[in-house]
Amino acid sequence: MTKIFVGIDLGGTNIKIGCFDAGLNLIGKTSISTHIEQGAEAVVETISLAVKKLLAEKGILQKNLCAAGIGSPGIVDIDNGIVVATANLKFYNVPLRQILSKRLDRPVILENDANVTCWAEYVAGAGKGADDMVLITLGTGIGGGVISNGQLIHGWRNAAGEIGHIVTHQGGRLCGCGQRGCVEAYSSASATAMRAKEAICAGVKSSLEKVLAEKGEITCKDVYDHSAAGDKLAREITDGTAESLAVLCVTLLHLTGPKRIIFYGGMISAGNLLLEPIRKFFGEQVWKIQKEETELCFATLGDDAGIIGAASLAINAGQKEKT
Amino acid sequence: MTKIFVGIDLGGTNIKIGCFDAGLNLIGKTSISTHIEQGAEAVVETISLAVKKLLAEKGILQKNLCAAGIGSPGIVDIDNGIVVATANLKFYNVPLRQILSKRLDRPVILENDANVTCWAEYVAGAGKGADDMVLITLGTGIGGGVISNGQLIHGWRNAAGEIGHIVTHQGGRLCGCGQRGCVEAYSSASATAMRAKEAICAGVKSSLEKVLAEKGEITCKDVYDHSAAGDKLAREITDGTAESLAVLCVTLLHLTGPKRIIFYGGMISAGNLLLEPIRKFFGEQVWKIQKEETELCFATLGDDAGIIGAASLAINAGQKEKT
Repeated sequence: MTKIFVGIDLGGTNIKIGCFDAGLNLIGKTSISTHIEQGAEAVVETISLAVKKLLAEKGILQKNLCAAGIGSPGIVDIDNGIVVATANLKFYNVPLRQILSKRLDRPVILENDANVTCWAEYVAGAGKGADDMVLITLGTGIGGGVISNGQLIHGWRNAAGEIGHIVTHQGGRLCGCGQRGCVEAYSSASATAMRAKEAICAGVKSSLEKVLAEKGEITCKDVYDHSAAGDKLAREITDGTAESLAVLCVTLLHLTGPKRIIFYGGMISAGNLLLEPIRKFFGEQVWKIQKEETELCFATLGDDAGIIGAASLAINAGQKEKT
Repeated sequence: MTKIFVGIDLGGTNIKIGCFDAGLNLIGKTSISTHIEQGAEAVVETISLAVKKLLAEKGILQKNLCAAGIGSPGIVDIDNGIVVATANLKFYNVPLRQILSKRLDRPVILENDANVTCWAEYVAGAGKGADDMVLITLGTGIGGGVISNGQLIHGWRNAAGEIGHIVTHQGGRLCGCGQRGCVEAYSSASATAMRAKEAICAGVKSSLEKVLAEKGEITCKDVYDHSAAGDKLAREITDGTAESLAVLCVTLLHLTGPKRIIFYGGMISAGNLLLEPIRKFFGEQVWKIQKEETELCFATLGDDAGIIGAASLAINAGQKEKT
């Protein structure tokens, strides 16, 4: 009997589902829309039906399903399997682990989505072999996960891994969280666009002026595109983004000692225009007491990270139970 | 047969040695001078003789000694039991675990001294019950240790826990390590004294002027004493020290999620003049998304932390072997 594990990536727009064998080989995957307006119970029912449909399509008997893992955005109470709060799903105190487990009639592992991505890259992506690593998700906001000695760090009340709210600039820019000087207030996609917009509004000359005039907004992608095309302001802004991320990496190095720091998320589509300056600034900013060889790199699993990580956590939990 | 464990705290001036039962109860302790000039082998020989003498004095048979733990300053290669480099002991690539184990004819655990202190406070001091905690040592420099899920975090190549070199001020004051903006460059005892001296040299009026004129120097204790006496500059300086430590605590909270952050070392003799402003600034600086209840407090074990932590690690290692 082939043991089957399901990984579920719960997002505000779509839910991705993958089924895997015990060796974490992908057998099949699907994606369904998230109908937030129907509420948590209905969303779970939809997930459950989609899982059963996927297994049937792949000719897998329901009884071969061993366990499922699910990654959720927002604040997740791992110990109790509860989604405490997610702004974009409007789930509040939903015992997601329990209701999904009941629907599937199988054990379910619930984890925060950034931790799931971190775990995926550790077991199957850019983090392979790095028992100490940090994943940084770069998008509208900045998040991430920390692995130490081959284990995800959760912290007391699951407070760990809020990487965007590490302070790089004491007393600096106001962050959406209420703190000053968070790295997210400098280096997220929205902060990168915002800093460019502020400079233009303050009269700095840039080819981005035309974008702002025409669209009424500037995106992070615009800034990287204009930086690539040689615009001086855009380059200063993208350098600023990279420099604060480099300083963040210095802090990460000194606190948890990662072998590898991995960037994930929408912003990594900027490619070397993002990565090379981070590496350069890291080399300049890090201490000179000893040579540091922490590797800074991009994630490799792309959109599948969520289902891979969630399935791996389900496989892992089963193995732990046995020992 | 009572099982006995020895904890050794190796310092540049003195070596403290304690013997404990398996319940970590102190049976006896001693302190000997460190004769660095005689070299590592002779220092270990002295330690070995002092251990045997202490056991004999307490009427403990040598055969009852089960294992020893030793904490060393500097860069320590935990996996291989090697002191890679210590400035104040002049030990370079000394296989301390092996040579001490040979002398005592017992297993030895070698650990970095800040990690030993962190472990001691976790098992027997202010960190009891906090499976996620951080210890911050405040002295001439700033160091520390991190415990996550009841385990010390070492990181790749034992790079974790270099808490003084977390960057709070990107592009800020130059630190002795070569980085800019390290918390150590703002909040260590030497940085606190230095910032006061700089302000006076820049012409700021203060009762500390007289101290500088008379002694040619200002110490961190002077700054706290004058702050307590109501001097405005001294208060600004000690507030600055506290504020950067508070920002450090915000970063620690978001990265590893400690339940408790514990301050240890010479500077905590400043008492509430140090702790209260750290707590106040932490409350002001931390995010407003949710109420954070991380506790900021002082260590409670004092100078015995080194021997307690080292003995506990030795006891712990023995228990792990059995399972």
